[in-house]
Amino acid sequence: MMKLHSFFRSGASYRVRIALALKGLAYETVAHNLRTGEHKQPEFLRLNPQGFVPALELDDGTVLTQSLAICEYLEDAFPAAPALLPADPALRARVRAFCDVIACDTHPVQNLKVLGRLRAAGLDEAGVNGWAAKTIEDGFAACETLIADQPGPFCFGDAPTLADAFLVPQFVNARRFGAKLDAFPRLLAAEAACLALPAFKAAAPESQPDAD
Amino acid sequence: MMKLHSFFRSGASYRVRIALALKGLAYETVAHNLRTGEHKQPEFLRLNPQGFVPALELDDGTVLTQSLAICEYLEDAFPAAPALLPADPALRARVRAFCDVIACDTHPVQNLKVLGRLRAAGLDEAGVNGWAAKTIEDGFAACETLIADQPGPFCFGDAPTLADAFLVPQFVNARRFGAKLDAFPRLLAAEAACLALPAFKAAAPESQPDAD
Repeated sequence: MMKLHSFFRSGASYRVRIALALKGLAYETVAHNLRTGEHKQPEFLRLNPQGFVPALELDDGTVLTQSLAICEYLEDAFPAAPALLPADPALRARVRAFCDVIACDTHPVQNLKVLGRLRAAGLDEAGVNGWAAKTIEDGFAACETLIADQPGPFCFGDAPTLADAFLVPQFVNARRFGAKLDAFPRLLAAEAACLALPAFKAAAPESQPDAD
Repeated sequence: MMKLHSFFRSGASYRVRIALALKGLAYETVAHNLRTGEHKQPEFLRLNPQGFVPALELDDGTVLTQSLAICEYLEDAFPAAPALLPADPALRARVRAFCDVIACDTHPVQNLKVLGRLRAAGLDEAGVNGWAAKTIEDGFAACETLIADQPGPFCFGDAPTLADAFLVPQFVNARRFGAKLDAFPRLLAAEAACLALPAFKAAAPESQPDAD
């Protein structure tokens, strides 16, 4: 059985948990507590030298890293269970661009590592929280526009795609840092549609074996 | 003919130029000078509300954004011209993880927008350059490990993949910010192999119509 190296509060782990749950794929959770540095222990660094979660360990021992690459792998290896990217190449590119706005332009600029570096550089807590909130508001503004002409209730139509798997975890961070969300009605509606689904409930931080 | 909205010094535009050149696809460059704010003009914001380059305008007027998503589109739409991702799903995931280390963990944390925010937050120039160099060194350390067991001379074997298209532009930034590169012999060798190829020369910043 596949093993997902995960931390319940890790947004990037949450994305992969959603993709696995939407596809109905069984896996075992191997929890690494980022707060106590378990991801920097030699045993995990042998599996993933970057020391990041998530990492997906396949049955043959192959270890996949980076949430985007893992989700694309799941789509390549289990394409019809259901598909999380549309078939049309241009629409696939739009879904991927939505994911990239979150995975490239937003989350890495407000993750715990960067916020720690900002504190070390002298920013106070208000400055750090403001940095994170502004980053998320900018990213969400781009996301809202990318789906403005798309039917709902999900980001791209009547079934979840990878866009939803990336959006929902980012909302957790948005609320943690007090981002203003009124300008994003389409994103909020997609989040509500997602949170009503069993797959998203199963993948949620509070449903994980390592949740506290 | 496809139009690539680009800026000669934009690392993300450079990635897409490399992918287009490796696939031998014809396109017209539409240059936007990021230094004078041309990417924030209403005409371009109508095409790409995020105001970022690159954006790829297809023959039917569809506009694709985000360099990762554009490169994946080129692979979907022109798969055999040549392929820039391997066929094996687990190896595809490794190549994508390499791209993601650069496109998610590295470049967005040291791009001009973030460095400007750091200056506005009070960091001096030495602090800003140190932030960028450290970010790139961390990313390159992960990249070096991801290809340690792969044959050369390119990142993944005897032909360039998307990994090389993402690596080469990141080297430009690495040198600009004085990142220490001695620890990355495998990456340096891949870069040298790439720079000897006509496609990489054609895609280079200094070869662009808007280069100054």
